[in-house]
Amino acid sequence: MKSAYFDYAAATPISEKSQSAMKPFMEELFYNPSALYTAAQKVKQSIQEARKLVASELGCKSSEIIFTAGGTESDNLAIKGVMEQFPQGNVVISAVEHDAVTVPAKQFEHKICAVQSNGRIDVEALRSLIDDKTVLVSVMYANNEIGTIQPIHDIAKIIKKILIERKIKASSSNNFKALPIYLHTDACQAANYLPLLTNTLGVDLMTLNGGKIYGPKQSGILYVRTGLVLSTQILGGGQERSFRSGTENVAGIVGFAASLKEAGLMRFTESDRLRQLSELFINKLAEKVPNTIVNGSIKHRLPNNIHITVPGCDNERLMMELDERGLMVATGSACSASSDEPSHVLKAIGLSDAHAYSSLRITFGRQTTEAEVRQLVNNLSDIVAK
Amino acid sequence: MKSAYFDYAAATPISEKSQSAMKPFMEELFYNPSALYTAAQKVKQSIQEARKLVASELGCKSSEIIFTAGGTESDNLAIKGVMEQFPQGNVVISAVEHDAVTVPAKQFEHKICAVQSNGRIDVEALRSLIDDKTVLVSVMYANNEIGTIQPIHDIAKIIKKILIERKIKASSSNNFKALPIYLHTDACQAANYLPLLTNTLGVDLMTLNGGKIYGPKQSGILYVRTGLVLSTQILGGGQERSFRSGTENVAGIVGFAASLKEAGLMRFTESDRLRQLSELFINKLAEKVPNTIVNGSIKHRLPNNIHITVPGCDNERLMMELDERGLMVATGSACSASSDEPSHVLKAIGLSDAHAYSSLRITFGRQTTEAEVRQLVNNLSDIVAK
Repeated sequence: MKSAYFDYAAATPISEKSQSAMKPFMEELFYNPSALYTAAQKVKQSIQEARKLVASELGCKSSEIIFTAGGTESDNLAIKGVMEQFPQGNVVISAVEHDAVTVPAKQFEHKICAVQSNGRIDVEALRSLIDDKTVLVSVMYANNEIGTIQPIHDIAKIIKKILIERKIKASSSNNFKALPIYLHTDACQAANYLPLLTNTLGVDLMTLNGGKIYGPKQSGILYVRTGLVLSTQILGGGQERSFRSGTENVAGIVGFAASLKEAGLMRFTESDRLRQLSELFINKLAEKVPNTIVNGSIKHRLPNNIHITVPGCDNERLMMELDERGLMVATGSACSASSDEPSHVLKAIGLSDAHAYSSLRITFGRQTTEAEVRQLVNNLSDIVAK
Repeated sequence: MKSAYFDYAAATPISEKSQSAMKPFMEELFYNPSALYTAAQKVKQSIQEARKLVASELGCKSSEIIFTAGGTESDNLAIKGVMEQFPQGNVVISAVEHDAVTVPAKQFEHKICAVQSNGRIDVEALRSLIDDKTVLVSVMYANNEIGTIQPIHDIAKIIKKILIERKIKASSSNNFKALPIYLHTDACQAANYLPLLTNTLGVDLMTLNGGKIYGPKQSGILYVRTGLVLSTQILGGGQERSFRSGTENVAGIVGFAASLKEAGLMRFTESDRLRQLSELFINKLAEKVPNTIVNGSIKHRLPNNIHITVPGCDNERLMMELDERGLMVATGSACSASSDEPSHVLKAIGLSDAHAYSSLRITFGRQTTEAEVRQLVNNLSDIVAK
């Protein structure tokens, strides 16, 4: 039996376009882009072209793109970069953020906003947590486990309103100094399927990760709105306008840009195609394993994500039996897969421990076919029946 | 005329062995190593094998190797990782360190040890700077600009002595608490040519960089001696024993390990070959441009490095005229090449600004041939003569 992969949220293969973009920089164009001879300057030029390409996908300026070594580094730079600038400030995050946001945020004065049982943040609840000292709000665009899409644009509107209120308060009071307030979103999982125009979204900081959009691992960016000053996290030679020192990973940068462009081109057709496959999967599974629960929001959901609870089944055993049949699914997010604790995301949406340990994450991608989806449903129901 | 590259200290091409090692992980083996299905666990196994390979090259334990996104990140992790553990401590560095060490060190209480005119540190001078609060000494193994090799083993012996003295003092005094003291070395430039056995060297922390040893850019390691606790710099999913979060760049890790192994196999033959080419170059240049000065130590020097001053010549013009003839050399280290300031390394060895602006760095590597070396001497003398 042919094996099939259903864990695109954990890792995506590198697309051919991204591979070909990288190839020359893995081979003859190995020069250090900071060197001054012509061949190296051409390599530097390729970085600038990649930066322009990324900026055009995000509808922002080239100077607002910082290339990093992946999503985790970008999230750290966003959180620590802002919070170290405002030692008196606090950060508000959602209860379903990735550890790359949660762990750095917990190093500072922080508040965690609960989510509803469908995984969505309640914008008014978020608002009530924001006080005069809040300088950063970080809410992910779409969740890596349950696929729930957050109302980033609505959050951005609220933050703009708060900023105006602060300014008015400051102008009418001598004792009140208005702090800025910024919105960061981790868009690593969203990037394949949702629009990324930073001005439309209204974000000040946005994380993207090459390893989740069919580009190379440990490539990524942080979008940083003009005027926003971050504390530098990696110090040295001053590359990336001193935001991120270290000889540039030119192949990774160029490969990331190519993968982002390709993701943009495929966004609507792939979203449609995968939404149909997801519906097929959910409907078939409902027929065959009627007690299955689909977690998270049905409406506000990444088209490639299915997160289910099969009450009474041990998810590790399910995963392993499927693996024996060549079918790769996840029991949780890969980053915390080795941990024995139930996922903080599932706790946040109110799943009991028993249900959490009976849950599987299934994520589709570019190589997923209808035949594979049917194969998965059949095998899953077969295993559950036993 | 065929172009020739003489800037191997800035960047090395990726070797065929390293490329082939990476290839499967850029293609079919794209799985997230934290996932639990068999295919992903095999990828995880490849990381462990790479770690073992690196450890065997360094004569240390696998658990002492942390894979990072390159030399700058490793240096930052070493300096900030130790210094954040001891807010009362200070760090002593040499005056010729790379910015990836100098800039983070300057964030803490620090002292800078001068070097002699040949670029070598005076071990006694270093010793006199170390006080009871010194918890970290960072001296690079070999310099990236002038190629000078530092007496790391002698420094390690002194540090061990100081540690014993501290313990004796602590045991005979109730008021004195002995702080630990660690030795870090940035071995990025040394790794192709000098032995790397950490126990023989006597270091507690060591940085290596794939981009300088014919491996991929933004790959590298930090060796961390067992028992040494570092503050984590990049927080998140807890990869690399929580020292360095983020989905592992498996291709980069495997490519780095392959390049380090190859560097080990070629170390002696390449050192000999390049030393001969360097001597040829220096002798020929002395004949043709007799007023040339070779900077740094002749005896304690990387075999592939030639750093010269051609008094009265503008180094940028020299570099550009050589570039027009297809010959790539550096005016300084690539990382600071864009800066207008004379290099801190050249200042530290007492070069006047005028001499600094008349200096070139020429570094040979695996593809360098005798014909290329002769081509460079002839063109250089030709340009200087004009």
